[in-house]
Order: sequence, then C-alpha cells, then structure tokens
Amino acid sequence: MKRIIYVNTRTRKIVQEQVNGEMESWGGRLLIAKILLNGVPATCEPLGRHNKLIFAGGLLSDTNVTTTGQISVGGKSPLTGGVKESNTGGQAGKKLARLGIRAIVIEDIPLKLGTNVLIVQSKKINLETFPELNRKTVSETMKLLQDRYGKEIGVFCIGPAGEMLMYGAGIASPDNKIMQIRYAARGGLGALMGSKGLKAIVIDDTGSDYRPQYHDKKLLTETNKELIEALMNDPKTENRHVYGTSAILALANTVGLLPTRNFSSGQFEKADKISGEQVRKIIKTRGGVGRSGTSYVPGCVIQCCNVFPDKSGRKAVASIQYETIALLGSNCGISNLDDIAELNHLCNEVGVDTIETGAAIGVVMESGMFKFGDADSAKSLIKSIGDGALLGRIVGNGAYITGRILGVRRVPVIKKQAIPGYDPRALKGNGVTYVTSPMGADHTAGNAFETLKTTDPLGIDEQVENSRRLQIRAAILDTLGLCLFVRPPFVKKPDMFVSLLNGRFGWDYTLENVINIGIEVLDTERAFNQGAGVSENFYSIPEFMQNEALPPTNAIYNIPLQKMKNIWDIKPSKDRF
Amino acid sequence: MKRIIYVNTRTRKIVQEQVNGEMESWGGRLLIAKILLNGVPATCEPLGRHNKLIFAGGLLSDTNVTTTGQISVGGKSPLTGGVKESNTGGQAGKKLARLGIRAIVIEDIPLKLGTNVLIVQSKKINLETFPELNRKTVSETMKLLQDRYGKEIGVFCIGPAGEMLMYGAGIASPDNKIMQIRYAARGGLGALMGSKGLKAIVIDDTGSDYRPQYHDKKLLTETNKELIEALMNDPKTENRHVYGTSAILALANTVGLLPTRNFSSGQFEKADKISGEQVRKIIKTRGGVGRSGTSYVPGCVIQCCNVFPDKSGRKAVASIQYETIALLGSNCGISNLDDIAELNHLCNEVGVDTIETGAAIGVVMESGMFKFGDADSAKSLIKSIGDGALLGRIVGNGAYITGRILGVRRVPVIKKQAIPGYDPRALKGNGVTYVTSPMGADHTAGNAFETLKTTDPLGIDEQVENSRRLQIRAAILDTLGLCLFVRPPFVKKPDMFVSLLNGRFGWDYTLENVINIGIEVLDTERAFNQGAGVSENFYSIPEFMQNEALPPTNAIYNIPLQKMKNIWDIKPSKDRF
Repeated sequence: MKRIIYVNTRTRKIVQEQVNGEMESWGGRLLIAKILLNGVPATCEPLGRHNKLIFAGGLLSDTNVTTTGQISVGGKSPLTGGVKESNTGGQAGKKLARLGIRAIVIEDIPLKLGTNVLIVQSKKINLETFPELNRKTVSETMKLLQDRYGKEIGVFCIGPAGEMLMYGAGIASPDNKIMQIRYAARGGLGALMGSKGLKAIVIDDTGSDYRPQYHDKKLLTETNKELIEALMNDPKTENRHVYGTSAILALANTVGLLPTRNFSSGQFEKADKISGEQVRKIIKTRGGVGRSGTSYVPGCVIQCCNVFPDKSGRKAVASIQYETIALLGSNCGISNLDDIAELNHLCNEVGVDTIETGAAIGVVMESGMFKFGDADSAKSLIKSIGDGALLGRIVGNGAYITGRILGVRRVPVIKKQAIPGYDPRALKGNGVTYVTSPMGADHTAGNAFETLKTTDPLGIDEQVENSRRLQIRAAILDTLGLCLFVRPPFVKKPDMFVSLLNGRFGWDYTLENVINIGIEVLDTERAFNQGAGVSENFYSIPEFMQNEALPPTNAIYNIPLQKMKNIWDIKPSKDRF
Repeated sequence: MKRIIYVNTRTRKIVQEQVNGEMESWGGRLLIAKILLNGVPATCEPLGRHNKLIFAGGLLSDTNVTTTGQISVGGKSPLTGGVKESNTGGQAGKKLARLGIRAIVIEDIPLKLGTNVLIVQSKKINLETFPELNRKTVSETMKLLQDRYGKEIGVFCIGPAGEMLMYGAGIASPDNKIMQIRYAARGGLGALMGSKGLKAIVIDDTGSDYRPQYHDKKLLTETNKELIEALMNDPKTENRHVYGTSAILALANTVGLLPTRNFSSGQFEKADKISGEQVRKIIKTRGGVGRSGTSYVPGCVIQCCNVFPDKSGRKAVASIQYETIALLGSNCGISNLDDIAELNHLCNEVGVDTIETGAAIGVVMESGMFKFGDADSAKSLIKSIGDGALLGRIVGNGAYITGRILGVRRVPVIKKQAIPGYDPRALKGNGVTYVTSPMGADHTAGNAFETLKTTDPLGIDEQVENSRRLQIRAAILDTLGLCLFVRPPFVKKPDMFVSLLNGRFGWDYTLENVINIGIEVLDTERAFNQGAGVSENFYSIPEFMQNEALPPTNAIYNIPLQKMKNIWDIKPSKDRF
C-alpha cells in the first residue's frame, strides 16, 4: 500500500496515512494541488504555520517507465503567493517510490529555526537535529549527509539561501555521486523548507519490502518499450543528448526571443559563444570529467544533461542548461561559458534558482551598479547570497524585490516571478502561459517553443489555444511523474498515457479521462490561487513589454488581457494534444 | 468655477477642466476614489504609466471653516497595491483652494526620471525642470524653491527617498516659514510622485481672482462659529493644545497597546520618558524656539502641533507626534525624546513615513543587526536612506520588505503597510479597521481609541460595528477636508455637517445624505481594491499576532475573519455617529 508521511515540525510528530479512495488517483502535481486546496488556507503567510511543503511522487513513480524518477515539490509559493509545483530529478524520487511512499508533507513551523534533517528509511522515519549543517552549501551538505548516512542515500536539501528564507531559494536534489546538482528551483520553495527548520530530507530505501502490484505488467512494460523506442527514433532526443537543453539556444537567438541584457533585446551578438554547439565543443575538447548526454533520473533514455568541465578538465558545473545560460548569460550580457558555468555552480551551492537569480542580476546591472557583462561582479554577488550580505539577500529574494529596492522600472516578472528564457514579446504563446498559468512565469507550465513551426510566434492567432493545450499536457506529465521531454511520442500517440495508467492501476481510463487529469490539476490550482488573490485577474505582462519594442523583431506584447483571461472557457479540441 | 488640472508628465501637456455635474459633490478622498475607479486600471503597475497622483481639496476647502486646509493626496498605493488617500495640512491646500482649484492630477511617467517642479500660479501653470533639486532633502528643497519662487509659496515635495522610488516615501508639505514639516505620509505616495519625475509642486495664489460663491454665507459662518465654540469647550482640545497628539501616550501605555520592541509588548517600561507630559515639560524648560500648541493648517483652533527644541533651544523637529514617538520610540526600545526628535527630523528630511520607517527599524532590530534601544544606529540608518545605501534602501521600502530581506518572521504589517501606534491585540477595534479599511493598516481610517471608555478593547463585541461607524465618519471628514480632530462636536451634533454643506453649496442635504458620502467613499474604494486584488479577502492580522500573547494583557488577536468580512453588510445604526 502507498503511504503519505506527515511531519509536524513544531511537535516533531510523524504520522503515516494509507493512500486510498479518491486519493489513489492523485499523484505529483495533482496531489500537491489537492493538498493545498483542501488543507492550506489560501491566504496564509507562506512562511507561517499553515503552509505545507509537499514532496509528491507521480502516479507512475513506482514503475520502470522512463523518466518517472521526476518528483514534484510544492506548497504555497513564497514568491508568487499562489500554488507552486516544481519538479526535479535525482535519485531521491525513485527511492521514495521504492519505499512505497507517495508523498511527504511537512507541516507547521518550529518555534525557533534550526537545522533538522528528516531521515526516511524502510523501518524508521525520524526528524533529527544536525547543527553541523548550519549554513552549509549544497555539496558540503551532501558530503556531511553521506558521511553520516551512507553513500547511497537520496537527498533533498537547501543551501544557505533557503535557511535565510530568501524567496529565490530552491530545493536541491544532489545526486549521490556529487557530480550533478539539480533543483526544484522555482517559486521560493527553498525558503518554505527553511521556514520549517528543515535543512535536508534523506531517503534510504535499503531493505524496503514494498512491492508495487501492477494491474497489467505486460501492458505497462510494452508501452514503456514503445515509448522508449519512439523517443530513441525522435531526432530531438539525439539532439538533446548531444547538445543538452541548450540545443535550442541558436534558434532562440535567430527567432529573437533570447533574453539579452535585462530583456532589452531578443538577440545576443555573442550567441554563438554560449550555444549548445559551443557547450558540446568545449566538453569534447577539454576532456577530463566533461561529458554530454548524462542522465539525471534513473532509467532516463533522453539523457539531456552534461558535465561541463573547466579548463583543467575538472567539473565546473553539472549540468549546464538552456535557461541558466539564457538568464545568467545573455540576459546579463555575459558571453563566456566558463563564467556562466561558474555562476551556475555558485547558484547551485548557495541554493538559488538560476532563472530568478539571473533575472535579478540583470536588474542590478540595469540599475548601473555593475555593467552588463561584468561576470566577476556577478560571481561576487552570488557568493554574497551565501554570506547573507545585504545585496546578496536582495538578489537572493528575486528580481521583483531587487527592482523595487534599487528603484528599477524594467523588471521582467509576472506574478512576482522572473520570466524564463523566452521573451514573451517574440513568443507570444509563452506570454499567455506566463500570465494564465497558476504557476506564474514558468516555461515548464506550457512552453510554446515547440509551436514555432506551426504558429507565427509574433501573431495573436492560436496563441491562447496553444497555451491551453500545452498547459493541460504539462499538467498531465507533472501528475504522472514524467519528464516534459518525453512529450513527442505522446503527441503522436496520446493513447500511450491510457495504456500506462491502465497497465499500472487497471482503471479502464480513456483518453478523455487522461485529459481530465490535466484539467483537474489546473482547476484545482486556479481555485487555490483565486482564494489567495493570485489569479490572472490581477497580474499581466510587465508594462515595459507592452510598450517597448524588442529588437530585432520590434515586437511588443499585444495579446489583449481579455483574450488571455478567456483561456479556460475554450473547449479543447479533440484532434490535437 | 472650480477647476481640475491634469498634468501629463510625458508630453508635459497641461489641461484644465471645469468641475461640474456630479463631480461638484466629489471632494478630497471621494474625488480621489472616483478618479481611481473611473480612470486608473486597478491592476496597473503603481509606478507605471497608468497610475495617477492626485491632490484633491475637500468640499469645504474654499471656506473659512476651521481645519479645512487639510488636503487629500492619493493614487494607487505602491505599498499596498490598493487605493490610497493620505491627507496633510500646510499652506498648500488653502492656496490651491484660493486659486479655485479642486484638484491636480499628475498623469503618465516621463521616459527618464528627472527633477521637475510644477508651478501653479493664478495666471500660469507650468512644468519646469529644476535639476539643482536632485536628491535634495525636504528643507533644502523648500529653501531652493523659496529662493526662486518667493517666500509665500505653498509646497508639496519629496525627499531623496521618493526620488529613489522607495515605497516608504511620503509627500511633504513643508510650511513656508520652514519651521514645520508635515506629510501625506502613508502608502508610498512619495515613490509615486518620484515615478512621475516630479520633485515638487509650488502653489502661488498671488493675484487670484477666484471668489467662491457660498449659497448661504450666514449659515456657513454661524455653523463654523458653533463648531469652533464646541471645540474650544471640549477638554480634548486643550489637552491636544498643551500636550500635542502624544497626550494619549500614557493612556495607551496603561491600556497596554503601545507598540514596544517590534510589537512584542504593549507596555514600555520607560513610557513616562516619552509621554506627552514629558514633551510638554521639555518644551517649557528649554525655551528657545520650543513651543506647544502651534497650528499647521491656517485657521485651525485645535493647534495640536509643537516645535520641539534641542538642548540649546534650537528646533530639533516640528512637530513631534504620538505615532512617531510610538513607532520610532517605544517600538524601537528608544526612550530618549531627543533621540526620537532627531530620528523624526531625519525621516522628515529624507522624506519617509515615520510609522513605516519606525516599524521597519523595529524589524531590523528584531533581526539582531542592531539592538533595541540603539538610537545611534537608527540615526545612521535613516541617514543612509537619503544616501541610497543598501540597508537604507531596504528600510526605506518599509517594514514588509525589510522583514523579507532580513528573514524576520514577526513583521507588523497588514496589506504590506506598517501597523501604526495601536497594537490590534489590545485594541481590537483598530484591528478591524486595519483589516477592513481599503487603506490597510491606517489609524486615521477609523480609530477605535476613542471607544476605550465604552467598549472593552479586548472584547469581541461591538468592535466590528464600532469600526464601521468610525470608518464612515473618517471618510466624511476626509471628503469635506476637515481634520479628524474636529470630530467630537460632530458626534454631539452631526447636523453641523448638513449645515456646512448646505451653507456652502445649497444642496438641501439631510444627515442621511452626509452618511451616504462616507458610504460612497468606502464603496468606491472597495470596488477599486477588489479589482486590484487587495481586499479583506486576501489579507488579515499578521499570524504572530494571532498566536503570540501581548503583555501585559496577554491578549491575542481573535476576532474571526468572517466576522470582520461582514462589516459592510451591517446596517448602520442611526442613533450613533
């Protein structure tokens, strides 16, 4: 039987609940939305007693289906004030599933902040104090945890930024070889974890006797096989394997949507120095530990990650990705991949979202405090986040606050969350997603980049319809625990979703049921946001993007708010997915 | 005929409009609410192109009725995101009225911030650049303006904090003897003025040919006479005249509602050193320029202001007031009136709200960065606001942001605005006002301090009803342009409102019409806030005040949110006002 673990950080009491009834069909992002709507007052203080921090495996997390090691992390976002689900890979998700745990829910706050670790083992779940972890970086934390609990643990943890309750802080899931560090980065969930006095969660599945019962193992296995084959035959897989997620950077630059110098241009004159091709070239040339095509969830066949080496072949950062290169690179006028890799590494260590932090540094540069392109100042700044220095604390709280403190008027945020690597003026479908998604400005909530070939990115037509379709699909993937990058085979053959769910659970679902999962996610999240006062009624594209033409397309953002607001009244078309 | 002046800060075009029709009956706070609801998109960026900054005289501003020199200043608040009306005295309000101007509306924003001055004269209204004013303090600004435009001008201006767009910045109305500086302090209106590139408005009524037509001059004059007599016979007037607004401090301390050390106590053990009696004693003992009972609006008979002298008899600050002493004094653990006077003076010079700044410094002290009681650090900190130093910028943006940047959990704000000098746990009626007023935490919106004798301040009964009644009355006074301190005679004889309005305008109003003015103000403001997402549905009393008992009463805030939310559904009782 699946379990949910509730941890009260004030009383230190831990209780378990069996998952049954309706809850059986709630996983990942949907489970988070349900727990929030049913159990968290929407207007509560995000770092107060009533918010909950939730780690929820997807519906398929205890299967061998590729990429299902993704785990959803969520709560009421300190940054946006609304619902937040952010998912990440690593070993922890799979280990949690192997323990038969669907979710961990962290409740209340301690009277005094402290440095606690939740140890989840097959025989025991315990909240321990671990004062030596105080203000430790993510890799230091991982090392100390491995020294105490063994090498093979799965871990979620925060860096000093989360301990200091900074709204730009994320939750890291470092891999247990300490090679790669990935994040449930967005929305300030690291501050939420910090507010609960929780520095880390350690998952040790040794000796677990949980054996999932699959309704139709053959169907599940065969569908997974079909999925993997389809992925392997998709040229995008190879492309991502070789060039990583930054494979798209050159195209983003050509189209003119690459954030450049605090979103003042959509094209960066030095884009070729920070492209996926350049990432690949450096990795190949330098050798050492560098490599392309690594995976970050066990069993992933896409393997879009990499280990980026420094000049001496040692690890600079793993993995370097498109969003980070766009926000900490071109958006800050920085064109040297070694600089960007170091900035990325520093963010990973202090524990902040690279998108939020890159956008915030862009705002600092716009204020005139540093020049665009000044990588050294940017590095000192990120270090100072970890030290709790004032400017570090400001930037560590994200772009919105940075703009406010420094009196900058051009601040690229929606619902107070930084806009990721797609300027909405040049890819209007993403503007629709940023405004209407319950998540705020979040490319993973429904990324229209894939519609470039079929929809004019500068036009108004179809953008709202596209965004709706993409948002529903993203919500389904996030609920099943699949990585967004598996979507192409499902677009071609959506019935694979049906086979996977029926194979696992025997639910007798149709495709309509699957689509309804996505709609239910969004409805639940929107209901929470409505109560929290964080809906598309109150936030839109930043004013400067509605006024200022973006070179080279000279586009402004011009999709009428009313048209965007109607997104949920559109009937979804059955023939596209 | 009355005029409204519209100033476009981008095109520098100035147009005038005659006030007629329905608009005739809109003054002060009501006029601001109407302009916002009708002409400002509720969700607009507060420092962006679509917000408006409005200076609006009250309905009685062109009469001789006592205290009607108060002028309302408003716009969409940068701090709360909702409607904001903040009123102040000084000469400017009366001069504007003598020019026949009901309101000035500042629109749009310039492409680049600058240092502009709006000159309003009888023959000419002009927007001039005055670069020498850049980053000048309020008294420096006043001096330079007087050097250029003559001694007798009325002025509204901002200090460096407003120029730097800090959300704690207010709009000063320094008197033209440069003795007193008072503020439309709350809600960040100084940042709004700064965003429009406007450093000052100079009002020069020389040669005005505006002669108001009173419908019944005799009725107006007689009612004013009656009002003045009633005020002079009210012991509170004498009390305020002698001890200033801090006359109430000793009682506030006894009752246990005086903010002390970041709202951790309602009683300050050194309250006797900062009381109204002590203010009076120092003024009397030191002599020099010190004096009690000065006025700040022409024709005021209450004269609650003072000039507080330093040890050598020179002006330390004018005037020192209860809210300032409570927030910069006891709330920061500071018990020396000379220190508090200097802190007050420094706030006046850099241009920030003393309530917001005192609350923010209390939060800094709570963070451990300085100790409670460390007046020297507090002084340096306020100076650093004017310098634009980082901690200064943080504190200059108010208590909410300060708490967030420094990771402090106990932050005394409602709707992101600092709670003034009445802890809502020990005066629950004010809690109701803070939560339900469209203004956020604002004692002038409906102060239940006057109900101490009739309603148990710790009880739940009557608080909602009281707050409603007080809020309606405050809205009426703010619309007529009367100071809140004239209320006692109107409580005894509400029909004086009717006589004043009918005497001025010949409207044939009844008391019900007058009460409807207050209700219309609140309805209009609430409609704007609803659209802006800043309603009582989304904000309440800070969580720590709902959990933490306040010494010495050990009260928590326990009026149910639902009870507060129903405030506008209560039928107002006719027999009390």
